[in-house]
Amino acid sequence: MVISMSSEASPAEISQVVEFIRAHHARPHISRGAERTIIGVIGYRHEVQIEQLLTLPGVETVIPISRPYKLVSREFKRENTIIKVDGVQIGGAEPVMIAGPCSVENEEQILQAARMAKKKGAHLFRGGAFKPRTSPYSFQGLGEEGLRLLQLAKQETGLPIVTEILDSKDVPLGQEYADVLQIGARNMQNYSLLKEAGRSGKPVLLKRGMSADFKEFMMSAEYIMSEGNNEVILCERGIRSFVEFTRNTLDLNIIPAVKSASHLPIIVDPSHGTGRRDLIESMSLAALAAGADGLMVEMHPRPESSWSDANQTMNPQEFSDLMEKFNYFIYCKNNFEKYKNSQKIMKKAV
Amino acid sequence: MVISMSSEASPAEISQVVEFIRAHHARPHISRGAERTIIGVIGYRHEVQIEQLLTLPGVETVIPISRPYKLVSREFKRENTIIKVDGVQIGGAEPVMIAGPCSVENEEQILQAARMAKKKGAHLFRGGAFKPRTSPYSFQGLGEEGLRLLQLAKQETGLPIVTEILDSKDVPLGQEYADVLQIGARNMQNYSLLKEAGRSGKPVLLKRGMSADFKEFMMSAEYIMSEGNNEVILCERGIRSFVEFTRNTLDLNIIPAVKSASHLPIIVDPSHGTGRRDLIESMSLAALAAGADGLMVEMHPRPESSWSDANQTMNPQEFSDLMEKFNYFIYCKNNFEKYKNSQKIMKKAV
Amino acid sequence: MVISMSSEASPAEISQVVEFIRAHHARPHISRGAERTIIGVIGYRHEVQIEQLLTLPGVETVIPISRPYKLVSREFKRENTIIKVDGVQIGGAEPVMIAGPCSVENEEQILQAARMAKKKGAHLFRGGAFKPRTSPYSFQGLGEEGLRLLQLAKQETGLPIVTEILDSKDVPLGQEYADVLQIGARNMQNYSLLKEAGRSGKPVLLKRGMSADFKEFMMSAEYIMSEGNNEVILCERGIRSFVEFTRNTLDLNIIPAVKSASHLPIIVDPSHGTGRRDLIESMSLAALAAGADGLMVEMHPRPESSWSDANQTMNPQEFSDLMEKFNYFIYCKNNFEKYKNSQKIMKKAV
Amino acid sequence: MVISMSSEASPAEISQVVEFIRAHHARPHISRGAERTIIGVIGYRHEVQIEQLLTLPGVETVIPISRPYKLVSREFKRENTIIKVDGVQIGGAEPVMIAGPCSVENEEQILQAARMAKKKGAHLFRGGAFKPRTSPYSFQGLGEEGLRLLQLAKQETGLPIVTEILDSKDVPLGQEYADVLQIGARNMQNYSLLKEAGRSGKPVLLKRGMSADFKEFMMSAEYIMSEGNNEVILCERGIRSFVEFTRNTLDLNIIPAVKSASHLPIIVDPSHGTGRRDLIESMSLAALAAGADGLMVEMHPRPESSWSDANQTMNPQEFSDLMEKFNYFIYCKNNFEKYKNSQKIMKKAV
Repeated sequence: MVISMSSEASPAEISQVVEFIRAHHARPHISRGAERTIIGVIGYRHEVQIEQLLTLPGVETVIPISRPYKLVSREFKRENTIIKVDGVQIGGAEPVMIAGPCSVENEEQILQAARMAKKKGAHLFRGGAFKPRTSPYSFQGLGEEGLRLLQLAKQETGLPIVTEILDSKDVPLGQEYADVLQIGARNMQNYSLLKEAGRSGKPVLLKRGMSADFKEFMMSAEYIMSEGNNEVILCERGIRSFVEFTRNTLDLNIIPAVKSASHLPIIVDPSHGTGRRDLIESMSLAALAAGADGLMVEMHPRPESSWSDANQTMNPQEFSDLMEKFNYFIYCKNNFEKYKNSQKIMKKAV
Repeated sequence: MVISMSSEASPAEISQVVEFIRAHHARPHISRGAERTIIGVIGYRHEVQIEQLLTLPGVETVIPISRPYKLVSREFKRENTIIKVDGVQIGGAEPVMIAGPCSVENEEQILQAARMAKKKGAHLFRGGAFKPRTSPYSFQGLGEEGLRLLQLAKQETGLPIVTEILDSKDVPLGQEYADVLQIGARNMQNYSLLKEAGRSGKPVLLKRGMSADFKEFMMSAEYIMSEGNNEVILCERGIRSFVEFTRNTLDLNIIPAVKSASHLPIIVDPSHGTGRRDLIESMSLAALAAGADGLMVEMHPRPESSWSDANQTMNPQEFSDLMEKFNYFIYCKNNFEKYKNSQKIMKKAV
Repeated sequence: MVISMSSEASPAEISQVVEFIRAHHARPHISRGAERTIIGVIGYRHEVQIEQLLTLPGVETVIPISRPYKLVSREFKRENTIIKVDGVQIGGAEPVMIAGPCSVENEEQILQAARMAKKKGAHLFRGGAFKPRTSPYSFQGLGEEGLRLLQLAKQETGLPIVTEILDSKDVPLGQEYADVLQIGARNMQNYSLLKEAGRSGKPVLLKRGMSADFKEFMMSAEYIMSEGNNEVILCERGIRSFVEFTRNTLDLNIIPAVKSASHLPIIVDPSHGTGRRDLIESMSLAALAAGADGLMVEMHPRPESSWSDANQTMNPQEFSDLMEKFNYFIYCKNNFEKYKNSQKIMKKAV
Repeated sequence: MVISMSSEASPAEISQVVEFIRAHHARPHISRGAERTIIGVIGYRHEVQIEQLLTLPGVETVIPISRPYKLVSREFKRENTIIKVDGVQIGGAEPVMIAGPCSVENEEQILQAARMAKKKGAHLFRGGAFKPRTSPYSFQGLGEEGLRLLQLAKQETGLPIVTEILDSKDVPLGQEYADVLQIGARNMQNYSLLKEAGRSGKPVLLKRGMSADFKEFMMSAEYIMSEGNNEVILCERGIRSFVEFTRNTLDLNIIPAVKSASHLPIIVDPSHGTGRRDLIESMSLAALAAGADGLMVEMHPRPESSWSDANQTMNPQEFSDLMEKFNYFIYCKNNFEKYKNSQKIMKKAV
């Protein structure tokens, strides 16, 4: 249930509504906009009744929401959420590119990769310091040392840093070193981590779990938002299916589905999504055409010597080619209206 | 195993190779190109040996193929297969649009739909006369009467007809009335039907089965080709997964994967692939961006009164909007080189 | 909709109901039981109204069925369907064993296998004469010659024959040579074949498709029954999932689900279901414990020289061990009441 | 790589091997058995060579292990692992029953449930104090208060407690109150939690993730074992598939597969595995027949008033019926040899 207060509602009126909600064993979620205040009612059962709420002073409308997700939904917020990270807008008019190696390996590697990303026009830089590995015997990441190297890369290139956090107790480290905290597919339903990220004050990039259906994905974003953090970037990275020719099955269908049901931005990771270097470019372009707000790709100065994910990592030339098509996509998108008008003129002429 | 004959090989030499293959209990598949003759060896075990073949006069090279599919593979034929249906090229430089209602219902409906398809620029017209329905109690299609109505639509609009055949014994009807025989997802491994379609002399549009992996899809095309029919159009229409927000999970990843492994064209059916009218346009554009050779969409003069698949069928306005973006996609694709050059000039200027 | 006629209803009254149904563009499906006649109404829309039917003489009750399957459902027929094949009862008090090689290879192999099956206590004999193979270049079965060899096996052992039919045009051959027609997983939605099998007068063993959900499986059985054939044996043989340690994922959950929703017997094929010889025995016992009416296993005198499915085929010793446990399962099942009583006596004694 | 030391190896010789491993940048995992010491070599690359190891005094054999899991594998430890929890043996000759409600709700509910479990013969008691819920607005469990109520239940009934821990930082609470720490399906790849549980000194019940394949499941157990905790109980609880008639698809095939590849015990949770109360009994019996070392079922004094999972929770009567069949299964299992001998005598007599 969502309560929209009148634009003239006083602080006292807002407090009264909040107390009413608490008295009925529910939790208020207050969102103060420029114009008006919106109050989400969390955890209510039948005790909180719309009729009673409407009688309280300052209440304009009460929207009963049948979907299990509320704060995440377009019903709660009509306009797209745009997340600003340093100068970059995610969810705005133009898609963004997040690029970088799978893991932070050493200073030389990470600086080379960051320079390459910057030079070719990427907007954010990614790299893993904590690596979730299937095997306890695989390289687990450089940890805090890796985060320091990412900072170095930012200092040199100015690119904001996206990096993964694996455990709720590591969130403070992420707050210190990263601009965007990434929550990986394996942790999409690690609710302690979601809540802690929700309290971090940092934008959160939330990857869809390998077997997450739509509702579950939205609900995990809701966990973050219900802690007061509105800056959630969704990320499709492939689901698990019977299909064997790709490592995962990149499910682009979720892009327009999210756009319809939610105000949050959604980006696509075609590297993990396909696990095949030779498919990354095609699927990147497909993601943009489907309406994605950005891409996150793995790129490495020398993929063949990469410590992890070598099969799905672009080399400098491949990344450069992708950026050229990425930019052409934006160019075409921005010129569609012009094209339509020219077509109309031609038709008239004929 | 594939044998490439020298360009000067005589008919007698070709015959000798053919006899050699038969003598070793295998079956030759002869493909006479403009320049040279290629002979596929089907069903060989260890008896047919490369070394022996290379000693025969006229044999240039012998390519052992480890993949289970042969005729379908790029190793067998490097250049893309282009299939000509009346004037239309499928698999050529530009994608094609196949549109029409799910089922043929009556003369008025089918003629209205065909006129609309023609007017907006579709290249082929589709409509079902034999309908594979989950329930024996659902409308099963008008049968031959439906095929006659499709012919009428063709006479009026000139659009070639694509229609589904459900059983090997109905192939003759398809040969009489249709330009392209469609084999549906449920029949992808109906081997009798595949073989019969392979002998029909008509182009075959083969839909991927709901749980077909890559190899199985290729092998079903191989069944058709092994009967001497090289005109196979592959079609992705969604796979079955745990995902619940779409009727099926449209797996666009298969487009670049097919392009890499096979010379056959591949198109996409976003109507069945998503089951959601509101996702068709986005996923159509994504399919084109991923490299699809065409689209097949369900479109109806009045979807709300459609006898089947109403939820995934576009109305005239939606189809018109899609065609505008379809044409813009082709326009942009054709202007990429020009753009690249202009960028280079700009860079130099800077 | 199902109409239950009064036990005293005259033939004339039954005819009147039948005509009423036909007059309303629906199709009657008459099932004459020992006590009363039941009439299923197939393909009705809103024209056939319950109220009107209830006014007809001889009509006792009219049951509106909301489930899409009717004849298959327990609502239509409460007691279990028992199918008699020669002397064997399928769906009765005790489970049955169907065993035999994947393919009929030659006379010696098939007779050895049949003798072994008979000696160890199998109830029916299976063997493939028409093989649905993923590759057009794989062995496709001996065809009619294979059917003749199966007849020979029956003459020698008396075991009834189960064999697969791939195409509607081969049903007459199946009628001539087989006791039970098998429809394979790939053909579960080959509706022409289902209908033809429905008209064959032979019991039909219908395998679940690799990606068939519950309703689709029931609807395919409904296709057969709607042609007047009540003798359908369902068979679970593994579904397609992401799981890689088995060839398919044998879904035993469907056994109690079928028992609850339908009156038809259901058996399990653990050979195809797992694709692993080392799992067959465990999963066979699990299937019986879950309530399966029988098993169908692949067994071969020398699996290592089998022409197909060698990895999932039991050798004579393994089959003998399985039969011992199969028989012990029946023994235990038959002694459960006795055990319960002895426990009660012990409790009282204590 | 696994090193088996001679039974006469001295502590000094063992130390020398350990130092050798460390000097080659790998980590030793020492397991002192009654007879001999086994040393697992973790994280080795090519530096640690078998030949060199074999020259060290006290080394008997070196087993190179190609599978990615080592400590978990039967190659590492041939005999079944039996885990003792208070007096109960998990993985021993007879299966165990773990029963209890989904969530701890209040004192009355939890004591009633525990008494019922005890009376009917369950071996361990389960109940959730920390609940992983899809929605942030759903009941999240009573937390530490719930753990205290579970302790109360143990004091009254003597049944050891199994309860879920959601986050690495809650492991100390679990150590204080629980006998077995459960790691849920959503956390199967929460590596921080796995490691912390590995250091807890408590047996760990590890549920298979919804989309975990065999190797991933084994590797998560390996994470726990690589921290020195050998007491891991695996648990199958259903995977995610396209199937819609059950909440999850209970994959019993994994039972014999685990028995073949690993020495660890595996139990089955048919409540979550099917999500259907009417299927629990059948699938419980199937799990036992497939070789499961135990069951974990949800049971509640009044399922209809349960705060969570009401649809998959047994009532007292259903649980009592299940226990009767559970005990009969054990009775039959224990009498198989006797039956076989009686059959042999009968055969001779005939």
